[in-house]
Amino acid sequence: MTLIQSFTEGQEITGFYLLKSSTIKQTNATPPKDYLDIILSDTSGEISAKYWDASAADKETFFAPMLVKVRGVVQLYRERLQFKVNKIRPAAEEDGYHITDFVRSAPVPPNDLVYAIKTAASTIQDTDMQVIIDHCFGKVGDKLLHYPAAKGMHHAFYAGLAYHMTRMLELAEFVCMQRPFLNRDLLVAGIILHDIAKTEELTAELGIVSEYSFTGKLLGHIPLAASWVTEAATQYGMDLNSEKIVLLQHMILAHHNLPEWGSTVQPQIPEALALHLIDQMDAKLQAAEDALATMPANEDWTAPVRALENKSFYRAKGN
Amino acid sequence: MTLIQSFTEGQEITGFYLLKSSTIKQTNATPPKDYLDIILSDTSGEISAKYWDASAADKETFFAPMLVKVRGVVQLYRERLQFKVNKIRPAAEEDGYHITDFVRSAPVPPNDLVYAIKTAASTIQDTDMQVIIDHCFGKVGDKLLHYPAAKGMHHAFYAGLAYHMTRMLELAEFVCMQRPFLNRDLLVAGIILHDIAKTEELTAELGIVSEYSFTGKLLGHIPLAASWVTEAATQYGMDLNSEKIVLLQHMILAHHNLPEWGSTVQPQIPEALALHLIDQMDAKLQAAEDALATMPANEDWTAPVRALENKSFYRAKGN
Amino acid sequence: MTLIQSFTEGQEITGFYLLKSSTIKQTNATPPKDYLDIILSDTSGEISAKYWDASAADKETFFAPMLVKVRGVVQLYRERLQFKVNKIRPAAEEDGYHITDFVRSAPVPPNDLVYAIKTAASTIQDTDMQVIIDHCFGKVGDKLLHYPAAKGMHHAFYAGLAYHMTRMLELAEFVCMQRPFLNRDLLVAGIILHDIAKTEELTAELGIVSEYSFTGKLLGHIPLAASWVTEAATQYGMDLNSEKIVLLQHMILAHHNLPEWGSTVQPQIPEALALHLIDQMDAKLQAAEDALATMPANEDWTAPVRALENKSFYRAKGN
Amino acid sequence: MTLIQSFTEGQEITGFYLLKSSTIKQTNATPPKDYLDIILSDTSGEISAKYWDASAADKETFFAPMLVKVRGVVQLYRERLQFKVNKIRPAAEEDGYHITDFVRSAPVPPNDLVYAIKTAASTIQDTDMQVIIDHCFGKVGDKLLHYPAAKGMHHAFYAGLAYHMTRMLELAEFVCMQRPFLNRDLLVAGIILHDIAKTEELTAELGIVSEYSFTGKLLGHIPLAASWVTEAATQYGMDLNSEKIVLLQHMILAHHNLPEWGSTVQPQIPEALALHLIDQMDAKLQAAEDALATMPANEDWTAPVRALENKSFYRAKGN
Amino acid sequence: MTLIQSFTEGQEITGFYLLKSSTIKQTNATPPKDYLDIILSDTSGEISAKYWDASAADKETFFAPMLVKVRGVVQLYRERLQFKVNKIRPAAEEDGYHITDFVRSAPVPPNDLVYAIKTAASTIQDTDMQVIIDHCFGKVGDKLLHYPAAKGMHHAFYAGLAYHMTRMLELAEFVCMQRPFLNRDLLVAGIILHDIAKTEELTAELGIVSEYSFTGKLLGHIPLAASWVTEAATQYGMDLNSEKIVLLQHMILAHHNLPEWGSTVQPQIPEALALHLIDQMDAKLQAAEDALATMPANEDWTAPVRALENKSFYRAKGN
Amino acid sequence: MTLIQSFTEGQEITGFYLLKSSTIKQTNATPPKDYLDIILSDTSGEISAKYWDASAADKETFFAPMLVKVRGVVQLYRERLQFKVNKIRPAAEEDGYHITDFVRSAPVPPNDLVYAIKTAASTIQDTDMQVIIDHCFGKVGDKLLHYPAAKGMHHAFYAGLAYHMTRMLELAEFVCMQRPFLNRDLLVAGIILHDIAKTEELTAELGIVSEYSFTGKLLGHIPLAASWVTEAATQYGMDLNSEKIVLLQHMILAHHNLPEWGSTVQPQIPEALALHLIDQMDAKLQAAEDALATMPANEDWTAPVRALENKSFYRAKGN
Repeated sequence: MTLIQSFTEGQEITGFYLLKSSTIKQTNATPPKDYLDIILSDTSGEISAKYWDASAADKETFFAPMLVKVRGVVQLYRERLQFKVNKIRPAAEEDGYHITDFVRSAPVPPNDLVYAIKTAASTIQDTDMQVIIDHCFGKVGDKLLHYPAAKGMHHAFYAGLAYHMTRMLELAEFVCMQRPFLNRDLLVAGIILHDIAKTEELTAELGIVSEYSFTGKLLGHIPLAASWVTEAATQYGMDLNSEKIVLLQHMILAHHNLPEWGSTVQPQIPEALALHLIDQMDAKLQAAEDALATMPANEDWTAPVRALENKSFYRAKGN
Repeated sequence: MTLIQSFTEGQEITGFYLLKSSTIKQTNATPPKDYLDIILSDTSGEISAKYWDASAADKETFFAPMLVKVRGVVQLYRERLQFKVNKIRPAAEEDGYHITDFVRSAPVPPNDLVYAIKTAASTIQDTDMQVIIDHCFGKVGDKLLHYPAAKGMHHAFYAGLAYHMTRMLELAEFVCMQRPFLNRDLLVAGIILHDIAKTEELTAELGIVSEYSFTGKLLGHIPLAASWVTEAATQYGMDLNSEKIVLLQHMILAHHNLPEWGSTVQPQIPEALALHLIDQMDAKLQAAEDALATMPANEDWTAPVRALENKSFYRAKGN
Repeated sequence: MTLIQSFTEGQEITGFYLLKSSTIKQTNATPPKDYLDIILSDTSGEISAKYWDASAADKETFFAPMLVKVRGVVQLYRERLQFKVNKIRPAAEEDGYHITDFVRSAPVPPNDLVYAIKTAASTIQDTDMQVIIDHCFGKVGDKLLHYPAAKGMHHAFYAGLAYHMTRMLELAEFVCMQRPFLNRDLLVAGIILHDIAKTEELTAELGIVSEYSFTGKLLGHIPLAASWVTEAATQYGMDLNSEKIVLLQHMILAHHNLPEWGSTVQPQIPEALALHLIDQMDAKLQAAEDALATMPANEDWTAPVRALENKSFYRAKGN
Repeated sequence: MTLIQSFTEGQEITGFYLLKSSTIKQTNATPPKDYLDIILSDTSGEISAKYWDASAADKETFFAPMLVKVRGVVQLYRERLQFKVNKIRPAAEEDGYHITDFVRSAPVPPNDLVYAIKTAASTIQDTDMQVIIDHCFGKVGDKLLHYPAAKGMHHAFYAGLAYHMTRMLELAEFVCMQRPFLNRDLLVAGIILHDIAKTEELTAELGIVSEYSFTGKLLGHIPLAASWVTEAATQYGMDLNSEKIVLLQHMILAHHNLPEWGSTVQPQIPEALALHLIDQMDAKLQAAEDALATMPANEDWTAPVRALENKSFYRAKGN
Repeated sequence: MTLIQSFTEGQEITGFYLLKSSTIKQTNATPPKDYLDIILSDTSGEISAKYWDASAADKETFFAPMLVKVRGVVQLYRERLQFKVNKIRPAAEEDGYHITDFVRSAPVPPNDLVYAIKTAASTIQDTDMQVIIDHCFGKVGDKLLHYPAAKGMHHAFYAGLAYHMTRMLELAEFVCMQRPFLNRDLLVAGIILHDIAKTEELTAELGIVSEYSFTGKLLGHIPLAASWVTEAATQYGMDLNSEKIVLLQHMILAHHNLPEWGSTVQPQIPEALALHLIDQMDAKLQAAEDALATMPANEDWTAPVRALENKSFYRAKGN
Repeated sequence: MTLIQSFTEGQEITGFYLLKSSTIKQTNATPPKDYLDIILSDTSGEISAKYWDASAADKETFFAPMLVKVRGVVQLYRERLQFKVNKIRPAAEEDGYHITDFVRSAPVPPNDLVYAIKTAASTIQDTDMQVIIDHCFGKVGDKLLHYPAAKGMHHAFYAGLAYHMTRMLELAEFVCMQRPFLNRDLLVAGIILHDIAKTEELTAELGIVSEYSFTGKLLGHIPLAASWVTEAATQYGMDLNSEKIVLLQHMILAHHNLPEWGSTVQPQIPEALALHLIDQMDAKLQAAEDALATMPANEDWTAPVRALENKSFYRAKGN
């Protein structure tokens, strides 16, 4: 299969790709005519595509995300490559392709990530915290295997949420070693729970967020996660006013640090502060790494990065 | 009994007053000597008092708030009246005074306020909302009869919280009449629940807040109230994702309107907006009314009012 | 007449509608050709329309707002309905239609609104305030019968300004009843005057603001209203430094509450505070009500509402 | 007479000084005793003074500002010089001193400043503007001869307002020469009127502001000056909507440039922009000059200057 | 040659103009066809132009900025004039035109501006400052003759930087005369150096900035200028901690006054404050003057001016 | 020697302590009498002390910081312990005490910290960066052995600056391992240089900052460090515009991330971002750790921590 990032003008392509988005549009002819405006992607990047001859049946068939087989030709339009689709059909099971082979994904297998997270959870010594975390794992189910961590700010890829958690857990181990006064139980539990309700806040498939959910818009992932802790504590008869439950809820509520970032309380225990700082470090360095990894080879500067003060990043030449 | 606001210089006073605060301090003599620095109050106002001859036993006896019988003389110190205590003892039951006769209080009897609130709750047609409200009433217990609504911003007096709720409910009736498209159930439930966790956030006695509680500092009354809704819904088997539960939690979370005022979500249903506006109107007009009602008779301008952009208010002469 | 909100694809329509805007544009053919890009509206909503065959005479004939008779067909373009105009002519007097039957309007007849406002004015006991208000009514003339209250933030419809005043006066009656310490004269006068110079600040016809006027841009409606009070006081020999005139000007200047909202002084009398709060409550609830009333029937969320922190509002299903 | 800035420890002084402030305070003896806490000043600076033996009659006699004859001794208290008053009496007419010889004042005689301002006014070619300015001069009367321009931000000295105007007029001449497209009439009129209502906003005597006035607090000098223009235009039958009146009012309203600085409209004609910039330049450079001129001789840094981002200024050694 | 601002619809034009920008675009025909989308300009203004018949060779020939000879016709498109190019070729030396005759430029010859700046530099009495300024002149070279002062905020024309410096020097002379306590050496040196590294920060040709340079993005002109001072002082063996060097660096670092405008230190010597104020006055008045000078003759209001709070400016009719 | 944190009321103490501050004050007797108001400290904490019988010679003898031998008694004053000095003399060399044994200090010996920093510097592969760092080490000299990292925000103790660098270098090793795409040379060099000019910005002795220096106030440590890089590059003939020098300066200039925190450029290479994040993490966690380590044993909450949004921190009971 030809990788999208190696497409060249004039090339004829037949292969399987991910239909990342598909919209019915109309030409500006008189009368206007419907066509499919498509984004095809694989792990190496994505390309705009047009299917001019879409039939009424086609319009009912192709909805993102979906694995498709296409045939067509690469063209140059307004200085950018574009793919003209001549034939398109959904991939069938017997084609032998897995859609996950085509989506941008965490560099570690999702199962390994989830295993690492659950292993970390099992090292927590406080059994109440373990029960609460298990309750939340139960609510999340398989979503942890594939949800991204955000719509676009950072870790916006398949299993991005689990990857973010895993890397934060690594950092937390180092920080706990450097500063032994920190309560490791609280910090590990806080990392696992702080973003876990993103699985409820966002509607996502194959690592791609399509929109904020009903509860996501009206409540947000921070109050949702706090609510899950209350739900678990209530079901298992824990005291909502016990120090450990209050501190755990505080970890979640304070992890964005400031009201304008979504936290109405500020960190007032060192573990909440550490959670916030570890979250920032992982999210921001990942955003920079992603911006540089996916920039065009012939540029010196990335596009502006929303998560990083909307600044472009420079790729050093090393000379 | 002589009202504090009618004390005059040189007057000898014997009577019962509320010991609103009492601190052990030391004179600047060498060696320094301990004395009690006191605030006495009644419904008409308050006055600074000094008990120079405090014994070791006295230091263990007088803690605010407490009803005391004092004898002493009114003096002028730095252009303000001050009371020199010659004798002081705690009031005894046989003295026949009720401490609540000496605290600044809502202008309506607390029982009537609570009755009005519970009556309003009973008119809610949705039975789940009723169950949740009852659950919260159960957690609050008698506190609703005497808690203030805040430490100092507005309604900082005995039963101030219930009075605030009651007046908001009156306003809500009018607004629902003027705009029938509003869901009255949601609005009434939101008014009753929006500040109910102030009884947990603040530590108060006799309408006087001494400090923010442990959970008040680490969580705050908005997440606490949301947690109580989750607790009730969990105990009674309601669906946390049902529209009515989500909207009720949204009412609570959004009622401060902006992140810098403590709301991480903004009103996105008209009832949440109405709740915010009714809350503002009642809190701010009460703050202005209180500032004007308690200002010295010979002044034209109040002291700066913290709840009102820290502005002084002018008392019109009407000429 | 078929209401615009019930138009369906393919339908042939002949009828009278309001030409709400009309712009000369050009097709992207070579050479480009002029056509009229039109918005038609009635009380139920509005629709984009194209008149491809506009003659040079047409271009000189059709200027918004104007009542027109059109014949044409409803088409689907980019997933939205659009009206293709085949014939169009200005409505004539003998057609028997009144343009006001086609504009979105306050739900109460303008004459009733103005009558209610003037009745309220007549209950003011202070004769100087009455004189000042009459002077302002004189300057405004018939505009009070049809001006909107804003370009788009709230009450942007025919007689929106008078409707806003009337509803605020109702709210004020309730608030004065709830809090008798308020000076009713000042509050009623303040409500009538606070936005009255919008009739000078904005250029509007049929409830549609086309632009800010010369004085609107350089001075704004708040300083303009203050100036009218000065003008009246000067003409009738009142003392500009008398308490009542100063307080009335203060009501006007402070009603936006904060500098960033247009007030260089903050409310420092309770009536100015009440005016601000009543203004907020009526403007914001109206904005929410309008957004929900005009949203498409098959959506759950409105478009973002500029007056309400740019948030979308949710229409509850009630399940 | 010995200048205050040359007082030295232990020196016995007899002389006339300005009583800049006088407050009755009490010693911390038991019982406390009243004394007068005084600030004495002359053109070279000021010094704290104590009159320990104040009689009841003294307390009724000495109110700032007032010229007094004192006898006493200079002492060192907490590392700063302080004056112990042994005798004090009000200066009498026959003593032959003028209080203005003792107040900090503009470096140009007030009459010359007012003459310069009126001369500039007379060069305005537009007769309506002249009439309006004359009307305002009439309202201000003698205050222009002695009012300061502010309570403490800049030009807080005798005739500071007239000095500020005069220097701004000089700068304006230069700027009009450098940029001939500016309308000199508008700019000169704007400079004369922009702060003229400070004479109404502030209560001041001998160049010392004691407080904001009733109208100062409720309206502020910008709306007051705009109101005076309206008053003049109304009295002399000018059209309030004529371009020249609107532009003149715009000059006044916009001269603080931003809402948070008190302007609800921003400059939208170049003369309003020039007025703002000239005002800033004169006010800020004067604040720096004053801070450096009145700093102690043995310091390198001034106290923080409120008008200049609260920064201390450095006096260069020139080495 | 016909000036661009006097072009009229239908007119046939042959002449020399500046090709200010040239981009290859494609028509929306199927298949799309390349054409050149051009901006032509002269000293009177600019006009959009289209060259529909661009050959492959043309695409390699025309790069802005360049002087070209064009033949074509003026058309009306979307209510604005546009130029249809029929023939285009680069101007040859024998055509006898100088490109600088076609660019918008400072109203004073660049050589005169540079002469004025160097003359001012020569009046500085401190020889170290002279050496540093000479070092910076050496780094800048010929750029001072043509660089604009900014990309678009103010003085965005040929020799705009030198013009800005010159006018600031004039203002500084006046201010030093009005306030003799200012150190003229420091102020003159500060004016010359404050923006001098814009020649390094910006990439510009013929007074037109194409982009921020590598060092411009990563360092900015303020740290660059400070670095040049350090470089000069190091090369010539001056003490980096001497008062004069520190003050000179402070002038540069503080001239934007506030962190959000790019200054991490605020003015703490009066000359740094004066530099900031003079810079503001010249930049802002120039922005207003330019906006009014280049606005269409039949408009009353300019387009919004980015440097002036994004406000439109009004051109007074003078009636 | 008795540790200060174990002092109890009434105890008589003789021993050596650090005189951390000493101020001449006066009693409020008449006439007032001079005494020394002292802070004594050791590694366990500090205590307020009074030396009532200070002679004129004493006033010339005791200046902080200095090691002293004191005899006296512990008293209770206003609910806090205080030390009454009866005898005091400077420690002599023959007393055999080292002042550094009495100052709060990094938990690692300063020599080890400096060794670790220099070892890290030696692993940088780029020789130009090494030369620049050596140049800066030369300027700093012995200060690296004892300077604190700030006046009070974080690491305000002996060798706090070196400790901060060392811990950041440890974190950087981990981050470079986790994210191999980072340029280790740049990150290590950036960590060593980012705060190095604090040794010039602050005046400190024994880990205690007394004030900001002349260059500290007028330039600040960020521009100073950038200037040192320029100085080194100039002396050793490196190209100021080479990528490595520009990136190194960018690291320094951008490490505070936002203008309001002192950075006029934002991180635009990933190493600058990592430097900022590592700096934040180490500074903030240290501030929390210090606040909890030095809080009184019987409290649950620390005093507000200025570096951490001015929040108090809670010490968990672990129950």
